[in-house]
Amino acid sequence: MTSRIAHAGLRSKIATAEEAAAFIQSGSTVGMSGFTGSGYPKSVPVALASRIEAERAAGRPFRVRVWTGASTGPELDGALAKADGIEFRLPYNSDPIAREKINSGEMSYFDMHLSQVAPMAWQGFLGPLDTAVVEVSGITPDGALIPSSSVGNNKTWLDQAKQVILEVNRWQSEALDGMHDIYYGTALPPHRKPIPLVNPGDRIGEPHFRVDPDKIVAIVETDAPDRNLPFSEPDEVARAIAGHLQEFLVNEVARGRLTKELLPLQSGVGNVANAVMAGLLDGPFENMTAFTEVIQDGMLDMLDAGKLRMASATAFSLSPESAQRFNSNAHLYRDKLILRPQEISNHPELVRRLGCIAMNGLIEADIYGNVNSTHVMGSRIQNGIGGSGDFARNAYVSIFMTPSTAKGGKISAIVPMASHVDHISQDVQVIVTEQGLADLRGLAPKQRAELIISNCAHPDYRDALRDYYDRACKTSFGRHSPNILDEALSWHRRFVETGTMLP
Amino acid sequence: MTSRIAHAGLRSKIATAEEAAAFIQSGSTVGMSGFTGSGYPKSVPVALASRIEAERAAGRPFRVRVWTGASTGPELDGALAKADGIEFRLPYNSDPIAREKINSGEMSYFDMHLSQVAPMAWQGFLGPLDTAVVEVSGITPDGALIPSSSVGNNKTWLDQAKQVILEVNRWQSEALDGMHDIYYGTALPPHRKPIPLVNPGDRIGEPHFRVDPDKIVAIVETDAPDRNLPFSEPDEVARAIAGHLQEFLVNEVARGRLTKELLPLQSGVGNVANAVMAGLLDGPFENMTAFTEVIQDGMLDMLDAGKLRMASATAFSLSPESAQRFNSNAHLYRDKLILRPQEISNHPELVRRLGCIAMNGLIEADIYGNVNSTHVMGSRIQNGIGGSGDFARNAYVSIFMTPSTAKGGKISAIVPMASHVDHISQDVQVIVTEQGLADLRGLAPKQRAELIISNCAHPDYRDALRDYYDRACKTSFGRHSPNILDEALSWHRRFVETGTMLP
Repeated sequence: MTSRIAHAGLRSKIATAEEAAAFIQSGSTVGMSGFTGSGYPKSVPVALASRIEAERAAGRPFRVRVWTGASTGPELDGALAKADGIEFRLPYNSDPIAREKINSGEMSYFDMHLSQVAPMAWQGFLGPLDTAVVEVSGITPDGALIPSSSVGNNKTWLDQAKQVILEVNRWQSEALDGMHDIYYGTALPPHRKPIPLVNPGDRIGEPHFRVDPDKIVAIVETDAPDRNLPFSEPDEVARAIAGHLQEFLVNEVARGRLTKELLPLQSGVGNVANAVMAGLLDGPFENMTAFTEVIQDGMLDMLDAGKLRMASATAFSLSPESAQRFNSNAHLYRDKLILRPQEISNHPELVRRLGCIAMNGLIEADIYGNVNSTHVMGSRIQNGIGGSGDFARNAYVSIFMTPSTAKGGKISAIVPMASHVDHISQDVQVIVTEQGLADLRGLAPKQRAELIISNCAHPDYRDALRDYYDRACKTSFGRHSPNILDEALSWHRRFVETGTMLP
Repeated sequence: MTSRIAHAGLRSKIATAEEAAAFIQSGSTVGMSGFTGSGYPKSVPVALASRIEAERAAGRPFRVRVWTGASTGPELDGALAKADGIEFRLPYNSDPIAREKINSGEMSYFDMHLSQVAPMAWQGFLGPLDTAVVEVSGITPDGALIPSSSVGNNKTWLDQAKQVILEVNRWQSEALDGMHDIYYGTALPPHRKPIPLVNPGDRIGEPHFRVDPDKIVAIVETDAPDRNLPFSEPDEVARAIAGHLQEFLVNEVARGRLTKELLPLQSGVGNVANAVMAGLLDGPFENMTAFTEVIQDGMLDMLDAGKLRMASATAFSLSPESAQRFNSNAHLYRDKLILRPQEISNHPELVRRLGCIAMNGLIEADIYGNVNSTHVMGSRIQNGIGGSGDFARNAYVSIFMTPSTAKGGKISAIVPMASHVDHISQDVQVIVTEQGLADLRGLAPKQRAELIISNCAHPDYRDALRDYYDRACKTSFGRHSPNILDEALSWHRRFVETGTMLP
């Protein structure tokens, strides 16, 4: 087995995970790789968690501040959160153990727009970055780093950290080399220039990360798979949502507002998103592109079928089967996939210029189309806003999709008032549930309410919504966006008290 | 008196306001000029309102859909709303009569991000534009239009409308000619290109509007002032807010996060904004620039003093005295002022690139820093979101300013939960009241709450906020952003019921 470390001098830095973790100090800030369960370091965080537990057992509290690209895997967020080792976390989390720590008030979490992490790190108010821990898929003879299955904020971590720890993961396909496009043209104002990307397939950067070799304190070799979740076949609800969405897109083409190539697709992750991709696979559109955060199974299928011409993202998020398929045939995708830093994959400038069709999930929407993507019952964080804010405000069409109920019907996704707002009504143009689709573009609040209640709400909740809305129209302080302040959050209160929003 | 219409052929189109208004049909959509009370048509809308009243008196209901740049004047929104002539209005309104019609439910109002109006008009889902009614300050010998004191969406209205009515207003300074920069490089995706502007002072377009002369059906000559509101000296509260803000900026310079030139300023309008400009006039910063929506009195003063190097905007909003001063000396400002289409002045691509220091007002913020800029008690629209969303999300620093109370202390600007959200916590980095400043950058929700309550809330409400927050931390469903669903909107309910938020 040949080493993935082609730079002779750097081979001297090879260390165990424990040796590497010893470089990380309590109270320091660690910038880790990782985005949507791919490309995160798999051994150093685990060793760090062990060290934290040992230190605590010895009466020496040990916690770090953790920055990443987005979500990671159980070997990072899970292990460190379990060890009570994370004092502060940004910019996104989906780990269940970390989620519990955040929601019990034990861990501070700064939930951020993903495109803003790198620029804000450069701005300086987040404080200094002490250590970068970055998974790569190899090191070139001249010491450049071949990125892994996600790019995320790695360029920024490598540039900013005082010291760098690398994990070289031989599980990642060697064919990843050349698939990345690392743009080195960013700057702080007043030195920012236009980002020279006008098509999703444009390459504007370099295939590798630069790194100052003197900053590298340890290199750990690994052979470990990404956290790839099994693919589950879309259920009937997801297929119904995909069907309504497809009908909307067909209509937009018929009206001349989109062509058969559509516009670059942005898609969140999950069951509904995969159903939408499956729908597009069988749909009438051709030669499509994606400008998105994450490449899921559905997009790989569309590439295979030739429906999708190319996809730009910052990370993979594949099922184990698709990861296997990708790794075995990665060379076939070399011209069709580009992984970029998340400040580029999600950049508002580019989302607006390209005119993305943004498709994101939600937890709840209110009758005026304000969307809550993050806080269950207004207080309990689920994951985070992720890139949805980067895309929704700047999209050509901003679509939000959800089953009309959750928890077996006990939660309505359409509520009188959102208990938290991540996407204001101006940024929510289309809402789709399995019940139907509401095209809210150009409508005033009360026009929106009529459509959302009629087209999107579940029948079990529709009458109650209409009753609330009718009474609000008669009694509200203002009648632009009528409300009943006493009742606006009563559905959430009922759920917390009784376990269901149903009366 | 020489005519401002230098194109001989077009002089034949000169008409009275009544003759011009006769070209507008009931049920049609009219795109009017006007932004923040400047550059709006002053005679045709009044004539149209008379016609509407006469038609209604004759049993023929007559209503139009009105699109503008932003707010206009009493001769437009006021007259048409009073005549019950507006069926639907976008993208912004501050007229008191129109506001009442909206809040009583008689007028539909689509409150939009101002940078999105032109691209959405091109997208087509807003429907066709029948007539443009645009104030200009003159017509060149070759038939190009010299813009007036606001640019707004005029380029788009002139391009899209089936017929064009012009008002040539000789009240506007002739020295305006050359001050505008009309960018003709916009397109619909997939044809969009980078906008080639890297400094607030860059000129990227043309000084005049193009128009197809065959579309011009009438030209009305006017001599009427803009709706310029008297300037009121900043009061103590506004000066205190400006002082806290200035201290923050001085600190940012001291920490090396800004230079003494700062970064391009964006400022909302009003008393507090003027106080901030007055503070900057006396402050330690030099050679500043502005990339903003509107040029107020304070900016003119800063230009005069040499503190401000140049200002880019889409409109003026001056007091009568400053308008007089500007009109008498407009040639002095020719190299220092640029007026652009609002899709450029507010473009997210440019706001992000330039790194604006965004300063906007608010109606209320909650303890986590979610901001309501539009809806009093969650239901009654005040004006609209305007450009605040274009700037706040993409700014280098996003600052919101407000007195800590309103209505003589009966309303707290800091509340347990915002009754409507226009700016999500991620887009609200600094909150300033006369009580103090909360620098929320990089903080988790509970850290934000501590600062907002301590630094920004009025003493009359501080204990009640702390009490709510403490109990929320103990009893909330989730403890990431703790709430008490029963009480979250109780302050608003109390105000509606008793006229005060105080218990």
